[in-house]
Amino acid sequence: MTISTMAPFEAQAMTPELEQELSLIDAWWRAANYLAVGMIYLRDNPLLAQPLRHEHVKARLLGHWGSSPGQAFLWAHANRVIRRHDLDMIYLSGPGHGAPGVLGPTYLDGSYSEVYPDKSQDAEGMRRFLKQFSFPGHIGSHCTPETPGSIHEGGELGYVLSHACGAVFDNPDLIALACVGDGEAETGPLATSWHINKFLNPISDGAVLPVLHLNGYKIANPTLLARIPHEELASLMRGYGWEPIFVEGHEPMAMHRAMAAAMDRAIGRILQIRAEARASGEAVRPAWPMIVLRSPKGWTGPASLHGKKLEGFWRSHQVPLAAPNTDPEELQLLEEWLRSYRPEELFDANGTLQPELQALSPQGLRRMGSNPHANGGLLRHKLRFPPLEDYAVPVVSPGTTQVENTYPLGELLRDIIRLNPDSMRVFGPDETASNRLQAIYEFSKKVWMEEFLPEDLNGSELARNGRVVEMLSEHTLVGMMEGYLLTGRNGFFHTYEAFAHVIASMFNQHAKWLESCLLHAPWRAPIGPWNCLISSTVWRQDHNGFTHQDPGFIDLAGNKSGDVVRVYLPADANCLLAVAEEALVETNVCNIIVSDKQKHLQYFNLEQARRHVAKGISIVGWASNDDCGTQPDNPDVVMACAGDIPTKETLAAVEILHREIPSLRIRVINVVKLFALTEPNEHPHGLSDRDFDTLFTTDRPVIFNFHGYPWLIHRLTYRRTNHANIHVRGYKEKGNINTPLELAMNNQIDRFNLVIDVVDRVPFLRSRAAHVKERMQDTILAHRAYAHAHGTDAPEVTNWRWTPPAAAD
Amino acid sequence: MTISTMAPFEAQAMTPELEQELSLIDAWWRAANYLAVGMIYLRDNPLLAQPLRHEHVKARLLGHWGSSPGQAFLWAHANRVIRRHDLDMIYLSGPGHGAPGVLGPTYLDGSYSEVYPDKSQDAEGMRRFLKQFSFPGHIGSHCTPETPGSIHEGGELGYVLSHACGAVFDNPDLIALACVGDGEAETGPLATSWHINKFLNPISDGAVLPVLHLNGYKIANPTLLARIPHEELASLMRGYGWEPIFVEGHEPMAMHRAMAAAMDRAIGRILQIRAEARASGEAVRPAWPMIVLRSPKGWTGPASLHGKKLEGFWRSHQVPLAAPNTDPEELQLLEEWLRSYRPEELFDANGTLQPELQALSPQGLRRMGSNPHANGGLLRHKLRFPPLEDYAVPVVSPGTTQVENTYPLGELLRDIIRLNPDSMRVFGPDETASNRLQAIYEFSKKVWMEEFLPEDLNGSELARNGRVVEMLSEHTLVGMMEGYLLTGRNGFFHTYEAFAHVIASMFNQHAKWLESCLLHAPWRAPIGPWNCLISSTVWRQDHNGFTHQDPGFIDLAGNKSGDVVRVYLPADANCLLAVAEEALVETNVCNIIVSDKQKHLQYFNLEQARRHVAKGISIVGWASNDDCGTQPDNPDVVMACAGDIPTKETLAAVEILHREIPSLRIRVINVVKLFALTEPNEHPHGLSDRDFDTLFTTDRPVIFNFHGYPWLIHRLTYRRTNHANIHVRGYKEKGNINTPLELAMNNQIDRFNLVIDVVDRVPFLRSRAAHVKERMQDTILAHRAYAHAHGTDAPEVTNWRWTPPAAAD
Repeated sequence: MTISTMAPFEAQAMTPELEQELSLIDAWWRAANYLAVGMIYLRDNPLLAQPLRHEHVKARLLGHWGSSPGQAFLWAHANRVIRRHDLDMIYLSGPGHGAPGVLGPTYLDGSYSEVYPDKSQDAEGMRRFLKQFSFPGHIGSHCTPETPGSIHEGGELGYVLSHACGAVFDNPDLIALACVGDGEAETGPLATSWHINKFLNPISDGAVLPVLHLNGYKIANPTLLARIPHEELASLMRGYGWEPIFVEGHEPMAMHRAMAAAMDRAIGRILQIRAEARASGEAVRPAWPMIVLRSPKGWTGPASLHGKKLEGFWRSHQVPLAAPNTDPEELQLLEEWLRSYRPEELFDANGTLQPELQALSPQGLRRMGSNPHANGGLLRHKLRFPPLEDYAVPVVSPGTTQVENTYPLGELLRDIIRLNPDSMRVFGPDETASNRLQAIYEFSKKVWMEEFLPEDLNGSELARNGRVVEMLSEHTLVGMMEGYLLTGRNGFFHTYEAFAHVIASMFNQHAKWLESCLLHAPWRAPIGPWNCLISSTVWRQDHNGFTHQDPGFIDLAGNKSGDVVRVYLPADANCLLAVAEEALVETNVCNIIVSDKQKHLQYFNLEQARRHVAKGISIVGWASNDDCGTQPDNPDVVMACAGDIPTKETLAAVEILHREIPSLRIRVINVVKLFALTEPNEHPHGLSDRDFDTLFTTDRPVIFNFHGYPWLIHRLTYRRTNHANIHVRGYKEKGNINTPLELAMNNQIDRFNLVIDVVDRVPFLRSRAAHVKERMQDTILAHRAYAHAHGTDAPEVTNWRWTPPAAAD
Repeated sequence: MTISTMAPFEAQAMTPELEQELSLIDAWWRAANYLAVGMIYLRDNPLLAQPLRHEHVKARLLGHWGSSPGQAFLWAHANRVIRRHDLDMIYLSGPGHGAPGVLGPTYLDGSYSEVYPDKSQDAEGMRRFLKQFSFPGHIGSHCTPETPGSIHEGGELGYVLSHACGAVFDNPDLIALACVGDGEAETGPLATSWHINKFLNPISDGAVLPVLHLNGYKIANPTLLARIPHEELASLMRGYGWEPIFVEGHEPMAMHRAMAAAMDRAIGRILQIRAEARASGEAVRPAWPMIVLRSPKGWTGPASLHGKKLEGFWRSHQVPLAAPNTDPEELQLLEEWLRSYRPEELFDANGTLQPELQALSPQGLRRMGSNPHANGGLLRHKLRFPPLEDYAVPVVSPGTTQVENTYPLGELLRDIIRLNPDSMRVFGPDETASNRLQAIYEFSKKVWMEEFLPEDLNGSELARNGRVVEMLSEHTLVGMMEGYLLTGRNGFFHTYEAFAHVIASMFNQHAKWLESCLLHAPWRAPIGPWNCLISSTVWRQDHNGFTHQDPGFIDLAGNKSGDVVRVYLPADANCLLAVAEEALVETNVCNIIVSDKQKHLQYFNLEQARRHVAKGISIVGWASNDDCGTQPDNPDVVMACAGDIPTKETLAAVEILHREIPSLRIRVINVVKLFALTEPNEHPHGLSDRDFDTLFTTDRPVIFNFHGYPWLIHRLTYRRTNHANIHVRGYKEKGNINTPLELAMNNQIDRFNLVIDVVDRVPFLRSRAAHVKERMQDTILAHRAYAHAHGTDAPEVTNWRWTPPAAAD
């Protein structure tokens, strides 16, 4: 039995009862459209109880009418099938600024007033509801976090399908109705996200029902997909693996009939696919249904103004009548437009929706404005976390053994998945094994709903129910993860460092979403952290070269509010585990964790690592030969480091210095929480000035070896007492095809250059240690020559291990 | 006549002559594959003149075999049709790391040795050629700028079609053969870039011939497109508007026959489309041909090792035999593999390719390794630039008239296009009019190859030959622009500020390309600047809200080499024009120009603006009441500003201070070149310490009002003498739906907060001007209340104009 050959589900027959229901649905839709127009224009006289006057109209007209009626139309018909089949359904609004088409329905179904009691379902509540829209100090014109029932903001376009997919992962009864704007559909992220159907398992996942809303125009242009031939569009959707159902036209009642039939067919098909897959126990990829809704932009709005076409043209994108607050003719047109919805039939004198229209909304949590999946924190699966001891790397003596730093994290993630089998997923762009997280596969594979080949049994690590999601689209993966988080589950994304920039804008938007929730939507329950492991880092991209060397993603993170962003730079495997233990159970934050995947020296045992991570920044006692802050006496130099490879190079430099200049008192500091460097009023990780001064001294030279671009450290520390003495090394765009040491030397983060920095910056060494500096310069030349001759680094560097300094006299 | 119904072009009949030619092509392909394997493995014994020994193998094995044979196969067949039809063709390598499949062919056709004479076409040259690959200090394993014939690096994936499209724009005779990796095809940018066919005019543009290379696997996963049913893939390609031709299999001679026929058919179709469109003079969108090449990953490589499948599986992605430098069995397998190509038949004893195989390459500039379009600077269309005087805004008295800052730039761009009709394009994501550049349409429209509707005549600004390219995909647009620039033309991209982050990674990669060209490929002639106008900036996103407020893109720019990056913050329309005059004619740089689109006060006449831009940073004499640097005497406070809105707020604050505290000596400084703030050794715009100190003083408080995130100013100035006294205001993530003034006040860049800053920081004012501070605090509260009551700012702020200070006593 293959699902795709089965007969389509029968639409509800067109009976007088259905005609009657559609007529009521049309009235409900008129109410929603009335509210949408009201939101854009009215600050008073919400029910048009009086003739419309200029002063009833807002002074500054902002908002987007274009896709609002189409979205309200969809919502009306979704309500019908939710009631008919008792569906668990949420709505995601892909078009950028169509919030009036979503806010109106959530007001009509009562959800809005429950969240915001002052926006009650009466005349005064409606006045407030309309006035607040796009009004200073209030809500925006896309579905901001303040919007009940929404998990998809649509500030940046392109993620409605990947968000919807993440929402229905492991929510087998959920349907995510995802309205795709035809402008949005032109973005790359959206264009590839049609392939989500290759990852949805009809047994264990819910369904996404995409509606491609062809309203024909963007801000000022036709859309590409609205103007290709019908057959080309159908072919495109089939090629993406969907079965399209077309609803096209503009005459309301004909459209209601068509949409009711389309929704019946689509929902019927989804329920049929589910039932068959679950009965058979065999998960195959079906041709899921999708709907193409072709309706005029600004549908039901004014047809034209001064001979310029409005409805069905791009001029309906925002505010079709621009000046009814001053122009009498436009005021009259606006009043006619508003009255065309016959508000007096829809709302009673008190401003409450008529009971027979109220009855069209589902009840309670079935209302899309109140569905708890859209306030996913309410359903949050708190992460069950195993004891770290099972994964810790034994560290007998610091800096003497090597481990792939991310490998134990993979073992930990394997067991986190084991403990949270229905609420934890790992997302990566084809790099889970490359980033050395392959231990996950011992418990769970990569989800794959396409064909299997015999060779897959020996090495492909694929399964129908895998917990790892891999696709070569960082956009789609992060979108899926966000949808998963926003519906109360847990996720972990990992990527190559240089290409984290691909999702820079997504990170910005998610951080802003979280910050907005804290400030403006406290009714949203906290959700699990947005986790991003940045691996395959700059210092081990010596072989991939210049294009793959870019540690700048963490610079972006510093631009967002400290309330919602964390950056971790664990020095070794146990620190990475301890970071995971702290970070993965936080809520409402974005965690950026930078850790290379290759073999690195191990320094901290688990207990030390946990203490270090808890503090965020520590003196490394075993590498220091000063008093380590226990006495008011200061070292001659502070050697600070952040990141795995910079830490190793700093330690190697310290070893050289201990050997060459034993009398030099050195304090070694390691930073794991980047924002410990800034002030506590800027970030919760921030160190007080007193603590900072105790660690870094107020007057000694600090040689700071940093993982990223060096100026980031200056930007974080410029207000600190000793800032003028902080000398930072980091990546400064000096790389090509190199050996690891050569790449480090090019950017002067290597041990030899660090020794030179110390000689140059500790005043009494300049003359006394000139010979050391000279030897270092020669050594650098020799290592470069070795690398170019052999193609590798010299063994004494590759095999370098930490030797503790001789005991002080 | 519609092209799509015409008979397909006839393939060359399968004659004994063609069989003979295909057999030679197979030998040429074996030579290319031999070189590819050699590049990955050999440091010596290039011709296998001796039995292979461990020491002939590189110590560190790096490189990507996976797609190399498939790409060399394509190249071989492209050579055949180039010779047959005397085609002008370039090759773009989409798969990430398949450089061996491109480098080998360029060596075989002689191009490589012409650029790099030490890699000569003999045994010693071949030894060097093989050894340098992925070797420290030498070339990488994707098509870096060092690769002759390439304009597409493929460090980040997803842009091969948009780059190809940009290359053929206005190059009517050019064909860009674009190999799309099936991993790459999963990225969002690639997925939407199939729609380039909606922008290619068969009369005035060349053709893109995409080859979707289905080799089945990414790093460790099957690819999505390789595992969907054949009909689904064909439907997808047809849905994107292409006519697919399938070449599938693995047996070499059968594949040669199939590919020869497919190439004949595809090229024939392209030539036919061209001929018909140009004969008829009527440009319609045809179904352009594309080829699906389904061949095994690591084709012709070892089938397996220790029972693990290699050829045709993901294990062929990089280095199939991992240890032939130490393992005798693998060494033997490697030697067998290399000898399977029968190098002794392909190269003479001296290492030179046999003459009958040399004859398979086109001649001279027809060789894809030598095609001048791929070193586009050679063909560079130097931008013809009109006199700025025609666009300048009259400024009689500074700060008294308002103009949309970007509007005159649109007029300038209109005429730049007029002067450079075949070599200048403007790219924007549906925002050309929104960003107020609509004057361009007076000369040229938006290119549109889809259907026209009657209403388009009244407002859509579409044309078959438009010079403006709009699509709601920043990725595709920037990719097109890069292809256009890299082939010697000029482009201008503009976008909303917050969503510039969408193309953050593309910017990084292009900046790295330019830097690499300077350092490693000086034979590449300079190309035109990558221009990005950032408009719809943070300070006027008060109505779109928090999601649209992100000025962090310029932070990224500061991470790249000063050699290739420029950031401009013009204060008004004439400064923007003067910036364009300087920036648009530079070469090998990325210009980021930040300018809001809305109406702003005008300060500088054209002459002043030009002088200001040339310096990059200037004292604003008419707003200052100190000696303006002419005397060694210092002002009491320096009020610095960068960006249009911060400049206005600073001036308004200065006006308040002049009025309230006339004795306070204020110096006003405006910054237009952001990197003037840093040192000259960091950036060519950098000010010397002496000049900086002269402007900013060494000890007076500096209140710096900045367009972006404030810490960027600290990061640029932390080494300056007076840094400790620089107090920066900028955007700090405090915004929602606001009025413009409220948004400014939330982030304290407004006039009132600036006055408070001055009172707080000028020592003698703290007590003397406490009343001023108090009044400012009251004013802030009053303005916030006004905004929330009226939905707009108070008229005295909206209508504020500069009043010069009373003459000094």
